[in-house]
Amino acid sequence: MTDATAILDTRSLVDALKLVDVVREAHHIPILAVAVANFDDKPHLKATDLDQELTVFLKATRTGEFQVAIDPPTAITAFGNSTGAATVSLDDGAAYITTSQVAVRGPKGIDLNDFPTLNTGKPVHRFTIAEGKLHAALQAVRFAISTEETRYYLNGVFLTAVDGEMALVATDGHRLARHLMEMPYDGPQVIIPAPTVYTLQHLVKRDGDAPLSATIGVVAAGKGHAGKDTHAIVVDGDSWHLKSRCIDGTYPKWEVVMGKAVDAIGGAPTIRATVTQAHVSRLPKDNSWRPTTLDPDAGTMRVRNDYDEDVVEMPLKGTGAAFCFNAHYLRQLVGAVGDVEFTGSAPDAPFIATPKNPKTVVVQMPMKVPGKKG
Amino acid sequence: MTDATAILDTRSLVDALKLVDVVREAHHIPILAVAVANFDDKPHLKATDLDQELTVFLKATRTGEFQVAIDPPTAITAFGNSTGAATVSLDDGAAYITTSQVAVRGPKGIDLNDFPTLNTGKPVHRFTIAEGKLHAALQAVRFAISTEETRYYLNGVFLTAVDGEMALVATDGHRLARHLMEMPYDGPQVIIPAPTVYTLQHLVKRDGDAPLSATIGVVAAGKGHAGKDTHAIVVDGDSWHLKSRCIDGTYPKWEVVMGKAVDAIGGAPTIRATVTQAHVSRLPKDNSWRPTTLDPDAGTMRVRNDYDEDVVEMPLKGTGAAFCFNAHYLRQLVGAVGDVEFTGSAPDAPFIATPKNPKTVVVQMPMKVPGKKG
Repeated sequence: MTDATAILDTRSLVDALKLVDVVREAHHIPILAVAVANFDDKPHLKATDLDQELTVFLKATRTGEFQVAIDPPTAITAFGNSTGAATVSLDDGAAYITTSQVAVRGPKGIDLNDFPTLNTGKPVHRFTIAEGKLHAALQAVRFAISTEETRYYLNGVFLTAVDGEMALVATDGHRLARHLMEMPYDGPQVIIPAPTVYTLQHLVKRDGDAPLSATIGVVAAGKGHAGKDTHAIVVDGDSWHLKSRCIDGTYPKWEVVMGKAVDAIGGAPTIRATVTQAHVSRLPKDNSWRPTTLDPDAGTMRVRNDYDEDVVEMPLKGTGAAFCFNAHYLRQLVGAVGDVEFTGSAPDAPFIATPKNPKTVVVQMPMKVPGKKG
Repeated sequence: MTDATAILDTRSLVDALKLVDVVREAHHIPILAVAVANFDDKPHLKATDLDQELTVFLKATRTGEFQVAIDPPTAITAFGNSTGAATVSLDDGAAYITTSQVAVRGPKGIDLNDFPTLNTGKPVHRFTIAEGKLHAALQAVRFAISTEETRYYLNGVFLTAVDGEMALVATDGHRLARHLMEMPYDGPQVIIPAPTVYTLQHLVKRDGDAPLSATIGVVAAGKGHAGKDTHAIVVDGDSWHLKSRCIDGTYPKWEVVMGKAVDAIGGAPTIRATVTQAHVSRLPKDNSWRPTTLDPDAGTMRVRNDYDEDVVEMPLKGTGAAFCFNAHYLRQLVGAVGDVEFTGSAPDAPFIATPKNPKTVVVQMPMKVPGKKG
C-alpha cells in the first residue's frame, strides 16, 4: 500500500476541498476536523459534521487503493495559487501531497475507520429538480429561518406541498416565507436543517439547469429507543453527494398564519407600499433593529434614531396609513427576494410582501409605529 | 441664518465624508463622534480624534454662511448610491441634507463651538514631497510599527535623516524597517503616530505625483507645565489639510541596531535565501505565529504544526544553514515590500532583508530553529 499514489489536477483538488470544508467543523474529535480522500474505483473527498455528510468526487489517475486524511485549511492555502498536477501518496500512514511548488504532509495519527457513517434509512420518495430552481427556492425562503434554538423545529426549511404543488416554507414567528416550486410533490413532509440549506446553496449553481436527484429516507428508531422514526434527505449532483438528517419535530400550521393574513386583507388591501433595493441600501447599518416607518399616505419611509428623531427619510410609493418594520428585516427580505409590494389591512395586522416572482409570498408582522399612541 | 443653504455634488460629499470618517471615532463626546461641515469662503468638512484633525475641502454653491454637524455613517449609507446634487440647510440648528432620493436630518443638539482646535505650534521646517513617494515610503516601513503601548515611542514612524538624506524608520524590537527617501532633510526628527500614518495612506494616492506640502511645528510647553516642547506635523494635499501631534518621546538608536547587523554580515553573508510572494501566500493562516524554517542548504522552506511536524514544504533558493521566522512576520514583510533576499551571518544573528527597491532595508531577528538543540 505504501507505494500507492494518485495524480490529479491541483485546481480540482482545491475546489473539492473548499466544497467539503463547508460541512467540516474545527472539532476536538480529529476525524470530524479533517476531510478524507478516498482513492478507490470512484475517487472522492468526504467530510461530516455528524448531521450532514458531503462527498465530492475527484478525477484521479491512481496506482493502488488508499485513503488519507487532509486538513482542508492548510491544503487550500498551500495549493490555492498552484496549477498543474498534484500527487497524493502515503507517508507513514499520513497524506503527502506534492505539486512542483509546494508539499503538504499529514495530519498524522488519524484513524480513518473512525469516520462516522450517516444513516439515511430506507428510501421512501424520490424526485429530480433543476439546480437553478432549487437555488432560487432556497434563496427565497432561507432568510426567514429561525435561529432561536428553543423552537428547534423552526431551524430549517419545511418541504411540503400546497394543493399537490411542492412548496418550501421558513418562519421565525416574525415573518413567514413560502415559495411554490411549480412541480408536484406527494412525498413526506420534512424539515431540512439550516446548515444543510447553506451547504446546498454552496453546492448548487445559481444558473445551473443540471438535474439534481433527491431522495427522502425513513430512519427507523433503534430497538428499545424511546423516539420515533425520523427522516433524512440525500441530494445528488453530477459530482457530489450530500446526506443530511432532517429535523425531528412537528412544523407549525403555517397555512393558518398565511391564510389568516390573506383573508384579513381580502382582495382589497387598505394599505399598499412598494419597497425597493434602493430603499434598503439607504437604511442606517449601525443599529439595524431600529424602527423604519412606511407612511404611504405621506409618501415617505422614515428611520428614527435612538432619541426618537427621524434621521433618514425617503420617498415611498403607495396608499394608506403608516406602518412599521425594523430595518434589519426589511434589508433581509429585499436582499433575498428583491423589490416587494407590501399589502395590509391595518398598521398592526400582518402584512403580505409580494416580490416580482409571484411564486414567493412573505407574511411579515409589523412593529408598533413609533410616536403613535396606543 | 436659517435660510442659508449649500448645494454640492452628492458623490463628492460622500467621498469627503468617507475621508474624514477615518479620523472620527465613535466617541461619548458628541463633537468627536461627528464631522463638521463648514460653509464659508472655503467650504470644508472636518473631524478630529484630538491627536489628528482632518479637513477636506468641498466645492459648494452657497447662500449665507453656516456650520452643521453630520453623522458620517448615516450620511454615507443614505447617500452612498445617490448621484446628482445634495442640498444642505439648517433645520432648528441641525443639518437637513436632501437629494432627489433621500433626506438625512441631524444629529441635533451638538454645540459646534466645542470642536477642539489642534495646536500645531510654530512652524520650524517645511518640505514638499510627491504623493506617490510618500505613499511608497510609508508602505515600506509601517508593517514594523510596534503596537505595544508600554514603549509608546515605537508606536509610530520616525522621520529622520541618514547622511542628510530623508529617511523613515519603524521598529517593534523584532524587526526594523528603514526607507531612504532620495531627498535632503535637515528638519527636526519627529515620531509620526501610527493612526496618522494610516490616515495619510488613505489620503495619499499610490500613483499620484501631486506635490504635498509638509510643515513641522514646535508646540511650546504651557507655562508652569512640567513637560517640554513637543512637535506637530501638518500635511497639505490639493483638497485636504491634515494636522497631527507627534509622539513625545525619544526614538531609540536604530542606526546602532542596523549598523551591527550590517557589520556582522560584512560584505560576505554566509546565509542567503530569497523569499517570494508565492512563498508567503502558501503559509498556513490558522496559526500565523508558527515557526517557518528557511533551510537554503536543503533547498526548502518548512512550516511546522503544533505537534512539531512539518506540514508545508516549499522549494527555497539560497545557500547556508537553516534559520527561522514566524509566518506572520514573513507575510507582513513580503506583503509590504514584495520579494526579499535575506542575508545573514549565523542562524541566531540578525538577518537583513533586501527588497527589489534598494532604498528599503529591513533587519529581522530570527527565532530559534525548531528541533535544533541549543
